[in-house]
Amino acid sequence: MQEKIVKVGLIGFGTVGSGVAKIILEQADSIAAKTALRLQLACVVDTDTTRPRPVKLPAGILTNDINKLLNDKSIQIGVELVGGTGIAKQIQLKMLAAGKDVVTANKALLAECGAELYEAADKAGRCIAFEASCAGGVPIISGIRTGLAANDITALYGIVNGTCNYILSNMTAKNEDFTEALAQAQAKGYAEADPALDISGVDTAHKLVILASIAFGCQVSLDDVYVEGIQEISKDDIRFGGEMGYRLKLLAIAQKDGNGRISLRVHPSFIARTNHLAHVHGSFNAISIFGSAVGHIMYYGRGAGMMPTASAVVADIIDVALGNSATTFRHLHLKPHSEAAGLIDKIDNLVSRFYIRLMAKDQPGVFAQIGKILADNAISISGVLQHEGTGPNNTVPVIITTHPNHQYKITAALAALAKLDTVCTKPVCIRIVDIPDDKE
Amino acid sequence: MQEKIVKVGLIGFGTVGSGVAKIILEQADSIAAKTALRLQLACVVDTDTTRPRPVKLPAGILTNDINKLLNDKSIQIGVELVGGTGIAKQIQLKMLAAGKDVVTANKALLAECGAELYEAADKAGRCIAFEASCAGGVPIISGIRTGLAANDITALYGIVNGTCNYILSNMTAKNEDFTEALAQAQAKGYAEADPALDISGVDTAHKLVILASIAFGCQVSLDDVYVEGIQEISKDDIRFGGEMGYRLKLLAIAQKDGNGRISLRVHPSFIARTNHLAHVHGSFNAISIFGSAVGHIMYYGRGAGMMPTASAVVADIIDVALGNSATTFRHLHLKPHSEAAGLIDKIDNLVSRFYIRLMAKDQPGVFAQIGKILADNAISISGVLQHEGTGPNNTVPVIITTHPNHQYKITAALAALAKLDTVCTKPVCIRIVDIPDDKE
Repeated sequence: MQEKIVKVGLIGFGTVGSGVAKIILEQADSIAAKTALRLQLACVVDTDTTRPRPVKLPAGILTNDINKLLNDKSIQIGVELVGGTGIAKQIQLKMLAAGKDVVTANKALLAECGAELYEAADKAGRCIAFEASCAGGVPIISGIRTGLAANDITALYGIVNGTCNYILSNMTAKNEDFTEALAQAQAKGYAEADPALDISGVDTAHKLVILASIAFGCQVSLDDVYVEGIQEISKDDIRFGGEMGYRLKLLAIAQKDGNGRISLRVHPSFIARTNHLAHVHGSFNAISIFGSAVGHIMYYGRGAGMMPTASAVVADIIDVALGNSATTFRHLHLKPHSEAAGLIDKIDNLVSRFYIRLMAKDQPGVFAQIGKILADNAISISGVLQHEGTGPNNTVPVIITTHPNHQYKITAALAALAKLDTVCTKPVCIRIVDIPDDKE
Repeated sequence: MQEKIVKVGLIGFGTVGSGVAKIILEQADSIAAKTALRLQLACVVDTDTTRPRPVKLPAGILTNDINKLLNDKSIQIGVELVGGTGIAKQIQLKMLAAGKDVVTANKALLAECGAELYEAADKAGRCIAFEASCAGGVPIISGIRTGLAANDITALYGIVNGTCNYILSNMTAKNEDFTEALAQAQAKGYAEADPALDISGVDTAHKLVILASIAFGCQVSLDDVYVEGIQEISKDDIRFGGEMGYRLKLLAIAQKDGNGRISLRVHPSFIARTNHLAHVHGSFNAISIFGSAVGHIMYYGRGAGMMPTASAVVADIIDVALGNSATTFRHLHLKPHSEAAGLIDKIDNLVSRFYIRLMAKDQPGVFAQIGKILADNAISISGVLQHEGTGPNNTVPVIITTHPNHQYKITAALAALAKLDTVCTKPVCIRIVDIPDDKE
């Protein structure tokens, strides 16, 4: 088959940008042999044109002038790897207006301004491809859109933030405090100097917005997602949960019930130690999906890093160049075919199991008080853990796990428990997420 | 977007065929909402038109006359679910000649006659889509072709036969004999009355041929694959291997070294208990792939069954109807862009670690004899396990694991060991497969 030349312009020459340049420059022959497409890096735009990078560009293609890219009609595909929701949005809009298809890894921008950008792409007759926006190298977007197209998806559980998973893995394996594990992650380059976006759960929520929109075929927004981060997780709870058979993970969860009601949430989650997601360690990502026909399916791989993310970006470049992305973009649309707004469940209505830790005074009658408050709120106890021996200030950790109940009842019970003068610190509450087992 | 009507003809109304019919009939609205394609089941062909099936077809579409399907010009897509390599091949060729794109789950046919069928499709200007041929519901074909298109794939390790995995899982978990576990699998419908194709490893090899062709971009054949089945596996070796930290799996393995040499093999494999594939139980499938950019990636899900396989078939129908399959088929071709024939490594040249079990007489000097033979063949011992106590006929199982060495040296050593009059039965030899760890 005759080779087709595909000229690519790249904006944002950072870590992932360097990886993309590296693949296009070094793997052009191999990609041409596989796809009959000859990728050519025609232009690389960055405000910093002097800093050394781990890849050597051909002379003359690095510039700080975006117009060189926009005005070059031979460039069919523009890759936005600037990140963030400010200038990146203008860049994408300008590239679409200049008649270029857009490839991006920018989850924050798509989660916050996706509808506007998709509409601009529609109007320009172009497409936006964003495989790299979720779970780095794991081809989860095409997996859901194409591979699972025959399924009504009922649930998705994802570990999609490598920073948080790295921190929680180390807190679990090495019994480290959160601050200690965070510092380690920063020292090793797994967490940014300002880790807020990751540890707050917001980055995970950005990815959940994108994944849920595709999985359920309706545009959801960041406001639809309940978000809790991992900043307040104590290693004690990881240990106590571990003793009861659980591992702690920050999960992105999207569920749709039989009535089409949707629950979207990001929070620390105790999952059974036997679940596959419990064995996803360090900076790896994994997504478990439940489909009406396929049942349980899981994708696992590196969720970040120069080359894994670049792998997804270049996969998109190839898919766009083949014309498949445009078809997917037009047909498997992101615009609501059902109105999501009225279907989003509030967190108060969530039915879940819960892990509760109270620091209670080690004295007679305490358990009766606790038991009465739970009974008054119709909360049934599933398990209890209280080690013998008394800790600081004559307190002892009492761990209670519940049977499934509504969040609002648990919230009410926690407020009542906090008021007991025998309960010394704010009760800790972590949701237990019972992901269905893989039965024969 | 205006809905496009897509008429589908189905040949083979068995288990998977019923699942495909069920999805098309019951999910048509949901698929139309997601894809703007309205799938219509126009014709179902089977020699048996009376047997009850788990899905009710609209009146008049079930027939035993294939010409009704072939001659209906409005049918764009023909689904072949007859299976086997006889009549199924003629059916595919006739559908292509009649101008229909073909969707199939037939791994045996594609593995044995793929080149001929792909050429026929090329000539007819049609495509063949076969996501369902490997690993049932797991979208591994599109995962490799599209998701990992930017990668040079260096290795693939797959559990792709649910029957064998079900049997080995039960032998491991319940300490069952092979014959006992096979009978169980047959009773539960996980193994056919004639299980030869599965337990011999040939079905796994069929899938490996398809996966390796796509992963390495060169047409390989069944003759290129070294195949050992699980028929002779003893529960004792599963137990002894377990004590040394290994789990036994039937793996499909494709590896490409730095010189482009390819190793293709299917055999029982001891893998580290900590590896993700060790946690794939029962009839589930999983495939670990190593790519130049993405690193390690794993797909996991149901490898067989009515609805999971139908999920993959209908995903292909949608992809064909969108036009993407045709593009993929033309561009990401299966015909050799490199000549595979001279690149296939013989099994003798394999470098691997090995697990060896000898039933040795419990008497002085035996270990010295064994040690000398291994030393004479330059085989270095990695681990030894001999439990105290003597078994039947004054023998004792001696387990030796080796450091990496060539297969031909091990074969020579095994032959010499078998000749010792202190070694009472044929030595057992199982390869230890060291799948790279997921390092940070």
